[in-house]
Amino acid sequence: MQSGWSVPDSDGTAFTPMVVLELAPDTNEEAIKWLLSRIRDREQNGGVELLLEQTLTGGHDGQKGNPNVFLVGSTLERLLHGAEDVGLFKEFNDGSMRAFTYTNKDNFKDFQGDGDSLLSVAECQYIIKHKLDTLRAKDEANVPGYPKAKLYPGKSIIRRLQSKGILLQVFPLHDKEELKRLSFSWYKKVKFSSSSSFQPLNDIRRYFGEGLALYFGFLEYFTFAMLPMALIGIPYYLWDWEDYDKYVLFAVFNLVWSTVFLEVWKRSSASLAYSWGTLSRKKAFEEPRAGFHGVLGFNPVTGRKEPVYPNSKRQLKIYLLSVPFVLLCLYLSFYIMMIYFDMEHWALALYEVEPNFWTGLFLFVPSIIYAVVIEVLNLLYRYAAEFLTDWENHRLESSYQNHLVLKVLVFNFFNCFASLFYIAFVMQDMVLLRQSLATLLITSQILNQIMEAFLPYWLQRRRNKKAHKRLVKVMGDRELPLPEQAQLESDMSTYLGTFDDYLEQFLLFGYVSLFSCVYPLAAVLVVLNNITEVYSDAFKMCHVFKRPFAEPASNIGVWQVDIDSHAIVSKGIDIYSPLLLFKMNNDIIFVLMSSDLQLAFETMSVIAVVTNCALIGLSPQMKAYFLESDTQLILLVVCVEHILLAFKFILAFVIPDVPKQIQIKLARLEFESLEVLKKKKILETSESPNTDK
Amino acid sequence: MQSGWSVPDSDGTAFTPMVVLELAPDTNEEAIKWLLSRIRDREQNGGVELLLEQTLTGGHDGQKGNPNVFLVGSTLERLLHGAEDVGLFKEFNDGSMRAFTYTNKDNFKDFQGDGDSLLSVAECQYIIKHKLDTLRAKDEANVPGYPKAKLYPGKSIIRRLQSKGILLQVFPLHDKEELKRLSFSWYKKVKFSSSSSFQPLNDIRRYFGEGLALYFGFLEYFTFAMLPMALIGIPYYLWDWEDYDKYVLFAVFNLVWSTVFLEVWKRSSASLAYSWGTLSRKKAFEEPRAGFHGVLGFNPVTGRKEPVYPNSKRQLKIYLLSVPFVLLCLYLSFYIMMIYFDMEHWALALYEVEPNFWTGLFLFVPSIIYAVVIEVLNLLYRYAAEFLTDWENHRLESSYQNHLVLKVLVFNFFNCFASLFYIAFVMQDMVLLRQSLATLLITSQILNQIMEAFLPYWLQRRRNKKAHKRLVKVMGDRELPLPEQAQLESDMSTYLGTFDDYLEQFLLFGYVSLFSCVYPLAAVLVVLNNITEVYSDAFKMCHVFKRPFAEPASNIGVWQVDIDSHAIVSKGIDIYSPLLLFKMNNDIIFVLMSSDLQLAFETMSVIAVVTNCALIGLSPQMKAYFLESDTQLILLVVCVEHILLAFKFILAFVIPDVPKQIQIKLARLEFESLEVLKKKKILETSESPNTDK
Repeated sequence: MQSGWSVPDSDGTAFTPMVVLELAPDTNEEAIKWLLSRIRDREQNGGVELLLEQTLTGGHDGQKGNPNVFLVGSTLERLLHGAEDVGLFKEFNDGSMRAFTYTNKDNFKDFQGDGDSLLSVAECQYIIKHKLDTLRAKDEANVPGYPKAKLYPGKSIIRRLQSKGILLQVFPLHDKEELKRLSFSWYKKVKFSSSSSFQPLNDIRRYFGEGLALYFGFLEYFTFAMLPMALIGIPYYLWDWEDYDKYVLFAVFNLVWSTVFLEVWKRSSASLAYSWGTLSRKKAFEEPRAGFHGVLGFNPVTGRKEPVYPNSKRQLKIYLLSVPFVLLCLYLSFYIMMIYFDMEHWALALYEVEPNFWTGLFLFVPSIIYAVVIEVLNLLYRYAAEFLTDWENHRLESSYQNHLVLKVLVFNFFNCFASLFYIAFVMQDMVLLRQSLATLLITSQILNQIMEAFLPYWLQRRRNKKAHKRLVKVMGDRELPLPEQAQLESDMSTYLGTFDDYLEQFLLFGYVSLFSCVYPLAAVLVVLNNITEVYSDAFKMCHVFKRPFAEPASNIGVWQVDIDSHAIVSKGIDIYSPLLLFKMNNDIIFVLMSSDLQLAFETMSVIAVVTNCALIGLSPQMKAYFLESDTQLILLVVCVEHILLAFKFILAFVIPDVPKQIQIKLARLEFESLEVLKKKKILETSESPNTDK
Repeated sequence: MQSGWSVPDSDGTAFTPMVVLELAPDTNEEAIKWLLSRIRDREQNGGVELLLEQTLTGGHDGQKGNPNVFLVGSTLERLLHGAEDVGLFKEFNDGSMRAFTYTNKDNFKDFQGDGDSLLSVAECQYIIKHKLDTLRAKDEANVPGYPKAKLYPGKSIIRRLQSKGILLQVFPLHDKEELKRLSFSWYKKVKFSSSSSFQPLNDIRRYFGEGLALYFGFLEYFTFAMLPMALIGIPYYLWDWEDYDKYVLFAVFNLVWSTVFLEVWKRSSASLAYSWGTLSRKKAFEEPRAGFHGVLGFNPVTGRKEPVYPNSKRQLKIYLLSVPFVLLCLYLSFYIMMIYFDMEHWALALYEVEPNFWTGLFLFVPSIIYAVVIEVLNLLYRYAAEFLTDWENHRLESSYQNHLVLKVLVFNFFNCFASLFYIAFVMQDMVLLRQSLATLLITSQILNQIMEAFLPYWLQRRRNKKAHKRLVKVMGDRELPLPEQAQLESDMSTYLGTFDDYLEQFLLFGYVSLFSCVYPLAAVLVVLNNITEVYSDAFKMCHVFKRPFAEPASNIGVWQVDIDSHAIVSKGIDIYSPLLLFKMNNDIIFVLMSSDLQLAFETMSVIAVVTNCALIGLSPQMKAYFLESDTQLILLVVCVEHILLAFKFILAFVIPDVPKQIQIKLARLEFESLEVLKKKKILETSESPNTDK
């Protein structure tokens, strides 16, 4: 629980505020009163029994603040019940992870005394958010005072208010003490602990939730996984600078690495997720996303009246506008690529006319410009894609994400790698390939670091210098009254989720696995980048952005295919019940399901196999062996490639996603709850399946 | 329920016998008394409350029969409870499929009056089998009278008895009336109904269960799917007999066909499974298989004392003996292939010396001999594989199946197709390829028909001519006292499951999708074969084999990969809850999970893409276009191949496994049970999640 101050609720009971609810400054009084009463109302009456308090500050030092900022908290009792509703998994006395239930709360490890210690602040905030989201309309036809803001019985009120712009934002409060401790152990002190991880992943998880913790875990894993490549890369770079022959070995290494890399990650992320209790967590029915609009109709699943939007219409939008637009963008990016090649030619010509230091330096200018352009294009396209996907009007957040991620990824991939493929296989100019790979990589990394952390930091600084000064003081030791802090944080910019961070890592993974064999230093650069990345990301999470809500995640989600979700099953190590196996499968799928692009990383590594084989085939070294006939060379390369691909799939199929120990633990859990069910069947007792024994 | 006779139980209550329990003739009286009492005992005392009756016939006409044959039946009451235990899905009043529960039995569509009509005989027999299997040992240390036959508390008694050879067999009784009706509508009358299927799939399912019905459904689907190929094939065959050039088009057709074929099947099988209520059925914990043995230890999942067998030891057996053995067999098969090629050469030489009709005919002899040898090898290997897998001592049936299927499939694939690949790509002799493909296909089909139906039929006939005569009469109109019939059927040979039938279809699928472009008539032959196959299989099920127990199945299981178990999710058509989506995923995975070889068909179709591309590349036609350079040709073919493969995976990913209507229905179900759960949470009432409303 939060160690901060407590605030008296209107009815006097003191509580610890955790979440901030900001309504539009000009919100109709009636609506406010109605909303507050609905939130405070008892559950029997369809309320969510949360505690609320208005920040009574009218802004600070004359600068007019928004009066309609509310601090939301909850009693511990309610939070514990909420933990059961959202299906939190906690460590049981016997060391296994189990779905928390209020009735046998005392059997959970961290539940001492009044259970203060059980829930992390992040979890409390997540529960409160869940409660707010599940505050449903009853018989109200519309939001009081807003005849236009229709309400449908059983639908979330909060989402409605958001989509109508009455509710500006809901965000969790930072906890200054914890934040200070976290940021210190995270990036202030450089520690080489003997622990499994260099970052305090568990603290990160406690503060920011599983999703982010897992991202940082991936970042670290990825960096370490690249170390061997980097180490091999350095001597290559130092001694074979002008010798493009020796890279066959490196390409082969690439092949194996990019496959093993992902398989191992799956397993370690499963272990992390299990220890965090997110591996087996179930998800509730998904609400329509706030932005969704449609005409009144019947939901075929729930049978309830609610806005529906014909899928056919959405499909039309997608195929008649979105797809053409994406293609157009691809063409544009291709066109720019061609311009870049022209520039290259000019530069080269210039250099050949008078080869001196400056013209030699000038050789790099086109690539640098191109790299910048690429980054700009990616950014612009990102906004366009978001706009388009919004306009497609998807009903669920998950399917919205699917389409957004798909759009963005296709373009980013093409935009970043097309030129390299062109140079490698059409122009077959390895010198240029190496040079432009280097410049692309370095420039994009620098730009990314700027765009990601420093730019937003600087922007915010500019946005409210005064506030920022105070913020610094806040982050410093001085106490600041809570309302002030709420106002301050409400001005911080919002963290839009791990998508962009993963996207960056995805592209880096591409650079390394696809072409690093011609430019072995790539791995080194990526390693260096990621080390700074950890710090800049950590910094931005702590000081630049609003605190994000913890989202349960047991896996890097959309970014990795669960190509062997059945492998666990097929391995079917005997002791594990089929039942368990579906369970694990459906959890694994659950965490992967938010996108068509589960395949992103796997696909990349498949493309890497093909590319590296082709590069090997093109290597002068190989050509030297097959002087007499290209045909044989090509056939050989093709055969090798097919064998490698087959091997890759078999490997992915054979390595189980979830380590054996965890499979056993999950199986035991499954078994026990089945036993309980059986007992119940016979005794006709009245418990819920979750209360194991 | 069965329309047959009823027999008085020892305690006088009349019941309809459905299952036969045959103990060894020399079984210790004490053991028999104990077993019977345990089976009859009330559930509270750990019994299963089934009704038993000994067949009082001492064999027929002097020929001494086994006295220890028992007829097992059950009261309707118990069966209905059993239906709930095994989790049968039945059609609800609102037309959706729901898990049957005794408490709200009256809301199910087919439940009229006393509910006689609700359960099919196959289901009743399945329930009884389930009850017998779940008859668990209590405190008995061993089977009375058999100190060697140890018992472990909580483990299945029946399986123990089987593994100790005390229990010879448990099998369901045929129902003569139903069987007559079924076999008439199935294959006696040739009907071209307007219905979706030519076979009475629903009747088959009611009599033999979902697994078999689905096999016959697949057989029919496969045959129809091949019709277009056959139709295209005929003109090819008639007019291009000696022209090997025109097959590029056919190869391309092959590519598309083999992909679409599987995708469509997934969807239609899902629909079938849904209408049979097996799509959403859950599976209980798997018992150790009867053959499993080990030293006493602790099961890490259940924590119970039971025989365990170290996985390491099993792995050793597999890698030190099974794998080498398989490799040896592959080598043997390769060696024989080489001999076959020598024979081909002799035959050809002979023909060239004196070309006349007889030597011309003699050209086919080697292929025919080779085809016979292949079949024999497959058969021998099959037994060897079973023996080996038994010896590996797997604990669960599922993992036993995995290893068996894997062994068998690898060998069969190599044994059947190696020679064709060799001819096509090493010898590049299209004439020989066509000829040997034709002979292989035809010979193997003929042999299969013989081995499958007629041989066992004939064997059995020989085994007991007298009995058989009576059997025929039985199948004819005359009534035969039940005990006699039980004795008779106990002598019929046992149907070993759909594995071999699917295996045959798998190989046919291979012949067609891999090489039919060089021998277009292949599709025609397969179609003809499958039409007769339907009849011979139907006949063997009805008259040659014991009636098999119905096994729930919602899919051709091990034979097809669930390559897009996540596709449904990723498509995430908005109305469908994530929860449902796991549900469907885990069901789809459940039905696929019994083997590593979910991939069998998909893998084959991938290989088909590669093969056909290569064949196109080799075609004189293509070579004519690229006279100047092979290199270009090869590169082109490789590119096309990669594009096709990518396209194939995208297609498999995009097409959802489960038709939209069914997704909606399942989602609604999911939603309702969730609603019920929520209500319960609030009202703290006492129902199980299954009793939707």
